Amino acid sequence: MNEMLINRPNAALLAPWSRADFEAAIRAVGAERYHDKHPWHHLLHGGKLNMGQVQAWALNRFCYQSAVPRKDAAFIGRVLDRELRREWVHRLLDHDGYGDEVGGIERWLALTDGLGLDREMVISMRYALPATRFAVESYVTFVREQPLVVAVASSLTELFAPKIHTERISGMLENYDFIDDGVMAYFKRRLTQAPRDSDFALAYVLAHARTRDEQEACVDAVRFKCNVLWVQCDALYHAYINGNVPPGTFRPAPETLTIFGRSA
Amino acid sequence: MNEMLINRPNAALLAPWSRADFEAAIRAVGAERYHDKHPWHHLLHGGKLNMGQVQAWALNRFCYQSAVPRKDAAFIGRVLDRELRREWVHRLLDHDGYGDEVGGIERWLALTDGLGLDREMVISMRYALPATRFAVESYVTFVREQPLVVAVASSLTELFAPKIHTERISGMLENYDFIDDGVMAYFKRRLTQAPRDSDFALAYVLAHARTRDEQEACVDAVRFKCNVLWVQCDALYHAYINGNVPPGTFRPAPETLTIFGRSA
Repeated sequence: MNEMLINRPNAALLAPWSRADFEAAIRAVGAERYHDKHPWHHLLHGGKLNMGQVQAWALNRFCYQSAVPRKDAAFIGRVLDRELRREWVHRLLDHDGYGDEVGGIERWLALTDGLGLDREMVISMRYALPATRFAVESYVTFVREQPLVVAVASSLTELFAPKIHTERISGMLENYDFIDDGVMAYFKRRLTQAPRDSDFALAYVLAHARTRDEQEACVDAVRFKCNVLWVQCDALYHAYINGNVPPGTFRPAPETLTIFGRSA
Repeated sequence: MNEMLINRPNAALLAPWSRADFEAAIRAVGAERYHDKHPWHHLLHGGKLNMGQVQAWALNRFCYQSAVPRKDAAFIGRVLDRELRREWVHRLLDHDGYGDEVGGIERWLALTDGLGLDREMVISMRYALPATRFAVESYVTFVREQPLVVAVASSLTELFAPKIHTERISGMLENYDFIDDGVMAYFKRRLTQAPRDSDFALAYVLAHARTRDEQEACVDAVRFKCNVLWVQCDALYHAYINGNVPPGTFRPAPETLTIFGRSA
């Protein structure tokens, strides 16, 4: 993905955006293409999916969850500034857990447990869609290879996360008999974690991307990250709504295909 | 993709396959999931696509072409054995060209030129599907990170390429008025290049993967590479057959949507 930095002719010759314009450019990417706009999520939150389709979503999305602490560790491993490392490490702890805190990945597995999926199968990622794997691994690579401020900017989709998490919690609890408070714990916790993370990351990016070239690379990073999320939805839709399940990937058990949400 | 090596419990405890069984296991992956089985290619070769859909294929597939010399350079950069580097470098030259030889990427651009696509737009990859970008960059990362013999094994989809190239050349020349010999030059050249490459790579893998664990990792690498190719077809199908074009990606000009193959 290193070609990300080409294709913006003459950006270096332009004056930097003001902070307000820079932040507006970042937020405009979310308004245009954050995955809350994807039809898959409208179906998921609206109770239109059967249990097998919700299972497919949960086990694929596990790949993303499991990549997050790796990308955060890859980031920390490049940072010379101890204060920045000390700030960033809570993301690693939030996901992997530490001491008595089980962490976000364990909460995600409570969701896949609740959906009746075998935990070892989920963790192996063996039946996830290849498109999901490629997208999330591209995210890890991006964070490992891009300039630090651009790597930070790629986390800024969290600015848009509380809205989709709120919709998801209420929509899924309301619409699916097989979803309860316990399995939605991951999203409830993220409602407080994500704003803390995105506030820090936004302030960092606004302060550290100084040239127009750097600013535009940061906006491109948010676009890149939206693509990482959108691709996962497209792959789920193509496989489990339109019925084109790729060779060797998860096929829901027949009995799960007749357990629908209440609004289906 | 480093988790590729987990999930094969106890493989190290099993006896190695014979050469014949190992080769059969590699070839079975192609029989099961090489992208000649994907519906997109049946439509493409059968003249069922309009010109805009063929353009979408060509400009997305450019991303793959353009990644090939980078993955080969990443491979060569890890090899201590000068003889192996000297053998492998012809792949780099085949694609990038050298001296009077223009190379495969230039021949691919003759195809996109012939389809009326702006060359700078194609090269920028700015309008390619994100799923395509993620898949091909995951391939580059795989070759950079996996054990050498596993990286070599990931090239073995070339064993299955002559058949699809032969089908493509005859099918596309026969079925599309906007396709001629000149624009199909890439595939004609690959008919002789791919067997040379795959003969060498197969012999290397059969000789250098000695434990069952290594052999199975090589078979998984062929599976991984088939997924890289399959994902590109799925993404094209979802976007340009089913009409779910992701934000910010290529949208064919209206006039290209009414230029069909002869069999459409």
